[in-house]
Amino acid sequence: MSNPTAAMLVIGDEILSGRTRDANMHHLAGHLTEAGIDLKEVRVVSDDAPAIVAAVKALSDSYDHVFTSGGIGPTHDDITADCIATAFDDHIDVRDDARALLAAHYDRNGLELNEARLRMARIPDSATLIDNPVSTAPGFTIQNVHVMAGVPSVFQAMVATVLPTLSGGAPLLSRTLRVQRGEGDIAGPLGQFAQDYSDLSVGSYPFQKDGVYGSNLVVRGADAGRLDAAMKALEQIFTT
Amino acid sequence: MSNPTAAMLVIGDEILSGRTRDANMHHLAGHLTEAGIDLKEVRVVSDDAPAIVAAVKALSDSYDHVFTSGGIGPTHDDITADCIATAFDDHIDVRDDARALLAAHYDRNGLELNEARLRMARIPDSATLIDNPVSTAPGFTIQNVHVMAGVPSVFQAMVATVLPTLSGGAPLLSRTLRVQRGEGDIAGPLGQFAQDYSDLSVGSYPFQKDGVYGSNLVVRGADAGRLDAAMKALEQIFTT
Repeated sequence: MSNPTAAMLVIGDEILSGRTRDANMHHLAGHLTEAGIDLKEVRVVSDDAPAIVAAVKALSDSYDHVFTSGGIGPTHDDITADCIATAFDDHIDVRDDARALLAAHYDRNGLELNEARLRMARIPDSATLIDNPVSTAPGFTIQNVHVMAGVPSVFQAMVATVLPTLSGGAPLLSRTLRVQRGEGDIAGPLGQFAQDYSDLSVGSYPFQKDGVYGSNLVVRGADAGRLDAAMKALEQIFTT
Repeated sequence: MSNPTAAMLVIGDEILSGRTRDANMHHLAGHLTEAGIDLKEVRVVSDDAPAIVAAVKALSDSYDHVFTSGGIGPTHDDITADCIATAFDDHIDVRDDARALLAAHYDRNGLELNEARLRMARIPDSATLIDNPVSTAPGFTIQNVHVMAGVPSVFQAMVATVLPTLSGGAPLLSRTLRVQRGEGDIAGPLGQFAQDYSDLSVGSYPFQKDGVYGSNLVVRGADAGRLDAAMKALEQIFTT
């Protein structure tokens, strides 16, 4: 049985303009791999409603799970929640359960729950809330899409909440052999090896350090015994 | 007249598994903004031929320029060049001009131009080569798609070669006002400001530092005078 698949949608002009360097993709990728869910595709789109709606629909149709990051704050350019409602043809407005969370939070902090902050309580009717232990304003899950904040600390907290609720496949294990030869020397025998172990995933990631060319050969699979056997064969090929 | 648009396609299992953190997206995003080309979308896909072909076609149809990163080395999982040829219905084989570059390079370094290395001379018939001053193996441009290496130093060198040949629009200028108030306080007046200056792009990027909540308000546009006027108005709103 193959693992569940996933895609990520990063929403934000600040990434595409080069102003901000995205940190959430790398975080999510690592945690999905550990959970046995295969991240197959990432898209980054700008704060543009048609682009967001089209991407959500396409990814939701193609993969088991979709994770979005960004665009759920209180400002005018935070349009993710409304776009998700559009994508799923759902009604959206300020929801009582989300409003209650925000009201309690701002009350504790002596701040006003004004119109802008209330935008963060806009949640599609059929969604379930995702807890935000960092700054309260919730994310939400609708069908197979998990809508989360772009601020890395909040994103990470929401990932930690959502992941254990998803049934993953077998976690993907990986083993690495570092070889101090250029990829051009390695490629022939490595291609043969990849054919012999076609049930595993075999990658070559070149490096150059202090004038030395080499490559990290990474073999991935779900079965530890099979991986061990493959690594033994790989060492035979490249250390003899 | 609006700026030319661009998309980026990052190809590589190592990014999606969380093993490697992509560095090329942030580099390209910043340089495109400087060149007056609007990066509208980024996709990351795995080393999977149908996924690469579909993404190249979709992005090439939708944007003025497409930049790809990754999958043009000598190993069995480097399938980008062949996928690009498929996407454009072009013939691909080892090409004499690319072979000559590699032969001279490996000859200088006393290395054999073996079958694996020769894979890097596989170039679609109608493509033009992109110079690689770092490690010789060329990238290529076919129609509106620029195919470049994933190794950051090589990717950056290729971007530096390609960008000056593209006619950009007006470079996008940006101004930032740092405001030490939470986004919930800022959002109302900022939304009004964004409406008043709807010809500019207005973004809010929250931060939290040492318990202080604040936001960087970023205004972008091509006209310096218009930006200056907008920033004066913005300061009036948030410092009085």
